Amino acid sequence: MKQNAFYAQSGGVTAVINASACGVIETARKHRDKIGKVYAGRNGIIGALTEDMIDTTAESASAIAALRHTPGGAFGSARYKLKSLEQNRAEYERLIEVFRAHNIGYFFYNGGGDSMDTANKVSQLARREGLPLRCIGIPKTVDNDLPVTDTCPGFGSVAKYIAVSTREAALDVASMAKTSTRVFILEVMGRHAGWIAAAGGLAGQSPNEAPHIILFPEIPFDPKAFLARVQQAVAKHEYCVVVVSEGTQNADGTFLAQAGLTDAFGHAQLGGVAATLANLVSQELGFKYHYAIADYLQRSARHLGSKTDVAQAYAVGKAAVELALKGETAVMPTIVRKSSKPYRWTIGKVALSRVANKEKMMPRRFITKDGFGITAACRAYLEPLIAGEDYPPYRQGMPQYVVLKNRPVPAKLKTKFVLE
Amino acid sequence: MKQNAFYAQSGGVTAVINASACGVIETARKHRDKIGKVYAGRNGIIGALTEDMIDTTAESASAIAALRHTPGGAFGSARYKLKSLEQNRAEYERLIEVFRAHNIGYFFYNGGGDSMDTANKVSQLARREGLPLRCIGIPKTVDNDLPVTDTCPGFGSVAKYIAVSTREAALDVASMAKTSTRVFILEVMGRHAGWIAAAGGLAGQSPNEAPHIILFPEIPFDPKAFLARVQQAVAKHEYCVVVVSEGTQNADGTFLAQAGLTDAFGHAQLGGVAATLANLVSQELGFKYHYAIADYLQRSARHLGSKTDVAQAYAVGKAAVELALKGETAVMPTIVRKSSKPYRWTIGKVALSRVANKEKMMPRRFITKDGFGITAACRAYLEPLIAGEDYPPYRQGMPQYVVLKNRPVPAKLKTKFVLE
Repeated sequence: MKQNAFYAQSGGVTAVINASACGVIETARKHRDKIGKVYAGRNGIIGALTEDMIDTTAESASAIAALRHTPGGAFGSARYKLKSLEQNRAEYERLIEVFRAHNIGYFFYNGGGDSMDTANKVSQLARREGLPLRCIGIPKTVDNDLPVTDTCPGFGSVAKYIAVSTREAALDVASMAKTSTRVFILEVMGRHAGWIAAAGGLAGQSPNEAPHIILFPEIPFDPKAFLARVQQAVAKHEYCVVVVSEGTQNADGTFLAQAGLTDAFGHAQLGGVAATLANLVSQELGFKYHYAIADYLQRSARHLGSKTDVAQAYAVGKAAVELALKGETAVMPTIVRKSSKPYRWTIGKVALSRVANKEKMMPRRFITKDGFGITAACRAYLEPLIAGEDYPPYRQGMPQYVVLKNRPVPAKLKTKFVLE
Repeated sequence: MKQNAFYAQSGGVTAVINASACGVIETARKHRDKIGKVYAGRNGIIGALTEDMIDTTAESASAIAALRHTPGGAFGSARYKLKSLEQNRAEYERLIEVFRAHNIGYFFYNGGGDSMDTANKVSQLARREGLPLRCIGIPKTVDNDLPVTDTCPGFGSVAKYIAVSTREAALDVASMAKTSTRVFILEVMGRHAGWIAAAGGLAGQSPNEAPHIILFPEIPFDPKAFLARVQQAVAKHEYCVVVVSEGTQNADGTFLAQAGLTDAFGHAQLGGVAATLANLVSQELGFKYHYAIADYLQRSARHLGSKTDVAQAYAVGKAAVELALKGETAVMPTIVRKSSKPYRWTIGKVALSRVANKEKMMPRRFITKDGFGITAACRAYLEPLIAGEDYPPYRQGMPQYVVLKNRPVPAKLKTKFVLE
């Protein structure tokens, strides 16, 4: 019997999560004999809970194709983690109820470690409730912290953006250092794992090239060693470029971003790690500084998407549908690295239980002994992930990103569900 | 008699100032009968004062060609403004001395309003001292604040970067607003003029599209009106995107960036305008916020250079040499707009005295009545400047930017010059 599919985006969006959506929808459309309509959750899983779904059949083939080059989350995403089955069984039962009402036989959940946990629990409950639901997780996270898979779609593009931006800003600073800024700090994402900061290391090939210092969440911040390193770089090169992860911590486990700033009224202010470091450099060494905070720019910069990343994002979306059609459930497609030089990869799979709620940190061997740089092994790992360009089409100087119609699926249930 | 040329970069660098250098050097190389060697100042005019010049003949044709797609200042720039002739005549006389010693007959100075003033004064003194020196200014500034010329090379690329980044970040925020960030703030350059902030307005076509608010240095900041506008945008669209110029001022003329923050030790901290606005939004409206500070990333982002901007940067470099060969002096090539739709431009010229030390602000008719957006006239002006892409070549995922040999010209003078 032909069943419909439900697809939802979860957590922070990326430059390529829509490429995964494109892979899911285009592949499903090729199997109309088995998959009816693809519904998408408006604002992720919230759309399923509140029966607020989007009928993707209203979108033209070209609109769906354009998702491949459009950043952000086309159907809306959500930071909404389902509680454990014991804590809020009602949420899971509501999902089953909605899926049953709309004849959903396929559940595709596109997110990180939390979302893989949710998808796994939904699959367990569906089995118990006798609902024939294939639950497939689709990996996505700029943080690159999912285990098993070689990388997570979304990371390669943010890595490319940070590597290129670091090189470009370094050329700027180098040319001005004689009479202007000596220390430039780029603050990047990664609250727990330093993968994005590590990508900044691709900006240079030798220790003489920028960035001269990378600060990782995995390495406790040592102000003395840091300042000595800044001074050394300025003495040698006239300038110093620092890439710092937002998650960098003091030895006592507090975030550097919690700098103890207060405003004129005595309110505590979050200073941001770049501002904290800049003030430290200025007060202790007296160098002129500048800092940039890439923030959302880095994870939405589809104009500089990695071709490898886009291809992998599409591939995991496509593979999710194919796995479901083969009868698989409670699995996630993975990227399997066959070789680094040349980079060869293929699609594998892993049980959701093996990736749920797990974080993959930078291995210590990827960080230089002094804690301020990346090793050759790290470089060999990272380089293929930023390879290739995949430019969006432009018109009148601007990228042509698609905005979908997002036509709602008529509700079938009488009951409203109130989010906690 | 064949004479050498001197070229120097001045002030903050841009994504395309090297394209102007490329235009100068390639054009000079086509006129070897009249122009001997092109020397470049190491760190701008400082290199002339200290007789620290770079012999560009040591660079291959392909290295010079690569300048066209390389950001930053290839020979080093400087924030060093020559004083008036009366205040420091010694500096001007030193320039004449160095130029005479190295048989310099052409002086190309690539910078903003200050630099055009310097080039003008050098030309006056040379005439008085009987040195046959052709002094040509070459316009450059991301701030777009030089008068007479339609635009300044460097601006089109930063404008494109800010327009694209605003659109991309807005797609990200829009998809997360339901459960996460409601207000996103992008801080951009422009201490006196709001041209770069205005470019953020190109991210959307209608008032319903992001950015919902632009803050210009030309419009005094009104906290009440701003907060009302944020609230209105969130009510209507679930989110609000703000583009703010670093130079935005309070009604009393103080910068918003001077937020009165102090650290744990009571030291005053520069908060940055984005942080100031974010705190205001958080305290008064309670919305979750994020902010990005583009800083040097925006003016070095050659990976997203505007094709129009690159072409104009090259053209003014080329025209500078051609003007000098025609016997002109104390002039600057300009961009002359012939029509907006389609955009047609040609190269004109203006006397340096007419552009020296002048700033072109945003005309009031380019800003909407409420002070928070750009008008159709502004859009018609800006759109052609970001048109077209001009990607650098890539290898292994990274743009191939050139680093020159920068071989020094042997010194001829016995005297050292000490900078003040």
